[in-house]
Amino acid sequence: MWGMIATWRMAVEGVTKGAEMLKENGSAGDAIETAIREVEDFPYYKSVGYGGLPNEEMEVELDAAFMDGDTLDIGAVAAIKDYANPVSIARRLSREKVNSVLVGEGAEKFAHKEGFERKNMLTDRAKAHYRKRVKEMKEEELKPYSGHDTVGMVCLDSHGKVTAATSTSGLFMKKKGRVGDSPIAGSGFYADSKWGGASATGLGEDLMKGCISYEIVRLMSEGMHPQEACETAVNKLDKELTERRGKAGDLSLIAMNNKGEWGVATNIEGFSFAVVTENQEPTVYLVTRGEDGRCTFEVASQEWMENYMKTRMAPIEE
Amino acid sequence: MWGMIATWRMAVEGVTKGAEMLKENGSAGDAIETAIREVEDFPYYKSVGYGGLPNEEMEVELDAAFMDGDTLDIGAVAAIKDYANPVSIARRLSREKVNSVLVGEGAEKFAHKEGFERKNMLTDRAKAHYRKRVKEMKEEELKPYSGHDTVGMVCLDSHGKVTAATSTSGLFMKKKGRVGDSPIAGSGFYADSKWGGASATGLGEDLMKGCISYEIVRLMSEGMHPQEACETAVNKLDKELTERRGKAGDLSLIAMNNKGEWGVATNIEGFSFAVVTENQEPTVYLVTRGEDGRCTFEVASQEWMENYMKTRMAPIEE
Repeated sequence: MWGMIATWRMAVEGVTKGAEMLKENGSAGDAIETAIREVEDFPYYKSVGYGGLPNEEMEVELDAAFMDGDTLDIGAVAAIKDYANPVSIARRLSREKVNSVLVGEGAEKFAHKEGFERKNMLTDRAKAHYRKRVKEMKEEELKPYSGHDTVGMVCLDSHGKVTAATSTSGLFMKKKGRVGDSPIAGSGFYADSKWGGASATGLGEDLMKGCISYEIVRLMSEGMHPQEACETAVNKLDKELTERRGKAGDLSLIAMNNKGEWGVATNIEGFSFAVVTENQEPTVYLVTRGEDGRCTFEVASQEWMENYMKTRMAPIEE
Repeated sequence: MWGMIATWRMAVEGVTKGAEMLKENGSAGDAIETAIREVEDFPYYKSVGYGGLPNEEMEVELDAAFMDGDTLDIGAVAAIKDYANPVSIARRLSREKVNSVLVGEGAEKFAHKEGFERKNMLTDRAKAHYRKRVKEMKEEELKPYSGHDTVGMVCLDSHGKVTAATSTSGLFMKKKGRVGDSPIAGSGFYADSKWGGASATGLGEDLMKGCISYEIVRLMSEGMHPQEACETAVNKLDKELTERRGKAGDLSLIAMNNKGEWGVATNIEGFSFAVVTENQEPTVYLVTRGEDGRCTFEVASQEWMENYMKTRMAPIEE
């Protein structure tokens, strides 16, 4: 069995490319890196890679991570600027025994020495979004925008290896140097080939309060199906945060176990995800959360898919 | 009941100060911050705060974190330079709903705006260590040194609040921008007033492979005594890493539950820790790990304590 699952509609082209490699017995490391690079490279996704929205200083600072579930190798970068594919730098770092999580200027120096592609990641479109936002907020203090759509993926290959990876530009209008859950092991991602992997999107500051990706993999290690594991962990963290803080930020999780079974859970409306397995063509689903905290999903309609892309590519009225 | 437990002998003066506050019904937030500042300020501890050993570019880059177990608020800084007390910046950040983990230049800008004390954290003594190391390694590539003694603490106050906090200069000769487990929620620290808290020291890159502080608190939530929880988590991660990677890096953990019961575990020789509770004066213990993975500890002798300080303060022969 092989398969991939990823957060958000935006991941489906990447997942489709990754599946081509998995079909040919490619490795979960190569497939997930390829899949995430696809999302990073697409300029109209404004929360990942090229075209990602900037921080409050109009800089695109990117976070990414990679984990190999065989060795538990982890690599991550945070607050890195002007490199085309942060996930590839993270994967390269995962092969280092030490110094495998690098931030800011240090991450950029490493990437430079290793020959990774430099690229100005701030697009004209992202600048237009920034200017528009500044105008809108003229009379308030700049605040981070609520959009924060990380691409997070889990991949299982035909050799039984599980990987997890993430890539994001983080919160629009975040403070310089702000890091969310995406490059944080156990919060934004976790993978163990003995059991499976999980990855998160949502409000990083709240996701990390529950080490939620680790928790989902742990629940799978106790025999839970990925769907039950995701719902159990999301509902528990949502409840703890609501009890203690009055409310919980957005929490959306995907998981796949080492049999290719998968699951998702969310505490928001409008979460979508993409999945492919040996038995299933690449498919986008939309999630509905019931009042009991159970999540159901249906295949996204052709109309929804077309409308999604139209919205992403529409001109920005400033 | 109130109490504090902390990694390494170096924490005992801080813990003693913190205990004075706890005795007067002070908060676990104030006590742990005060205790860690004491360690940060002492110039002869070469792995925390002022006097901490530099990265390969001879810069002292510091990591610190703070977690409030009532609200699950987390604040952290990583790779921050030239601020006197990183733990205080981390605690200040923990009160932010978003942007509560900041790295590098962004963390420094925040600290500057908030009025935290700037201080050149590179001491002449640390420079002497650096030069000596460069000479020793003339014919090899610079490699991170094996010393990596983070101060990690857990604190319980008489109101039932549990906090955890860390502070470290990380690996001596680390790459610029390298981040270990100390500012990573769930790996370097975790606290939940419903159960207790845990904190780690050792090889950050390996500690984060098991989200080990979160795991210990989780085991305590299932009713395990802190001692059993620490041993269970350390021995499991040590075994997983050894199986998959041939060996495990240093893993040493301390924990306290919300009844003031405490525990420690390690996979190395020479781990020491400091503890104080309502019923126990501030005490330094030395840990011995049995072949069965059980850890026992004995009070450090007066001779050991004196010798420790003599070694720390001895002139450096270059």
